[in-house]
Amino acid sequence: MSTSQQAILVAVSTVIFALLPDRGGDVRVHLPLVRRTRDPFADQWALPGGWVRTSESLSGAGRRTLAETTGLRPSYLEQLYTFGRPDRSPGQRVVSVVYSALVRNHEAAAAVEGENVRWTSADDCTGLAFDHDEIVQYALWRLRTKVQHAHVAQHFLDEQFSLAQLREVHEAVLQRHLDPANFRRQVEGSGTVVETGERQTGGRHRPPKLYRAVVPEGSAGPLQSAGPLA
Amino acid sequence: MSTSQQAILVAVSTVIFALLPDRGGDVRVHLPLVRRTRDPFADQWALPGGWVRTSESLSGAGRRTLAETTGLRPSYLEQLYTFGRPDRSPGQRVVSVVYSALVRNHEAAAAVEGENVRWTSADDCTGLAFDHDEIVQYALWRLRTKVQHAHVAQHFLDEQFSLAQLREVHEAVLQRHLDPANFRRQVEGSGTVVETGERQTGGRHRPPKLYRAVVPEGSAGPLQSAGPLA
Repeated sequence: MSTSQQAILVAVSTVIFALLPDRGGDVRVHLPLVRRTRDPFADQWALPGGWVRTSESLSGAGRRTLAETTGLRPSYLEQLYTFGRPDRSPGQRVVSVVYSALVRNHEAAAAVEGENVRWTSADDCTGLAFDHDEIVQYALWRLRTKVQHAHVAQHFLDEQFSLAQLREVHEAVLQRHLDPANFRRQVEGSGTVVETGERQTGGRHRPPKLYRAVVPEGSAGPLQSAGPLA
Repeated sequence: MSTSQQAILVAVSTVIFALLPDRGGDVRVHLPLVRRTRDPFADQWALPGGWVRTSESLSGAGRRTLAETTGLRPSYLEQLYTFGRPDRSPGQRVVSVVYSALVRNHEAAAAVEGENVRWTSADDCTGLAFDHDEIVQYALWRLRTKVQHAHVAQHFLDEQFSLAQLREVHEAVLQRHLDPANFRRQVEGSGTVVETGERQTGGRHRPPKLYRAVVPEGSAGPLQSAGPLA
């Protein structure tokens, strides 16, 4: 077994997804990007992140660097994946532990757009620094393959939601129209939601029923299961 | 954003699960451990692993250190989780990217037990170096919550298997008896297996049908979805 400890730097990055309207008004998956101020990739857009300090946990580093760069403080970050290809950062070996969160729009509002922060549609996200294009595509793929679990979609909604609200989340994530009757049948048959016994408030004659998500066993996190030290 | 790069070391560890008989003859989940030859934790048992070299990928480091310490060369390693609690290694900050594999018994045979390598029942695995007890328990929890997907259990079986063989895998992983008729009904109703059209060979009058696993969308790896660079 090799005992040599070689110089590898450890960074964290965060992929924060919110459902926001694009310029045409269509609700789509967006994420905040931060403009780099230093080389490598000075002036290019990148995922929020930074170096891990020796005294902090990996998720703590994720929370700190996300707050420092964007102002975002999601209630929960889950570890998504660790990226460590030898050539992913020019001139130095950097391993990046990537954390992720799905946030509701009132939480997303903490990241105010400016010269060095912007929200971008995840599908239009290219030309980022390092391997961040690839990281975004991976996170988006995870979201799309897992959104059929209501406990994932629920991270974009309030605790209680109507089936129409749940369908709108699916439509925004998957970027396609879903037939309301089919969607209702599938969700009700899936066992992933239960009625709360309450109805949506509002002026309608027969307001829609409200539901909450059922979290399946072994699925702690929205994009994959959280680890024990998340 | 902090620009200081602090001294953090990057290691890999591997959790390799096989279904082997214990001393009483019961088939249980086992994993190979390696005796440490150096401090910290000299002479204690630990997961196979070592330092990542600057020139190799994380999964490449996992494969290399696993082969060097145990002789095991599983066809596929998936990234399980990255452990980085500040106090997990005495006197130095070490982040460990953990890889995992499920291996069939003919593959497991490559790890020959000796003074410095042994197979241990995962449930009896305590007193390991570092936070490796916790890593083993996490990997075991992932296995137990995911084994209901036949594509996970199938990693312990040949490409084609009978429902009795599949049930034996579930029984060994979950450590409880499963009713054959109920198990058959559940598996056939789950859509996770399909008949191959072939039957088990052997001397029986009516040999059992053979099945293969259906891999669900978005589930590339047995313990969690593999990343793009696995």
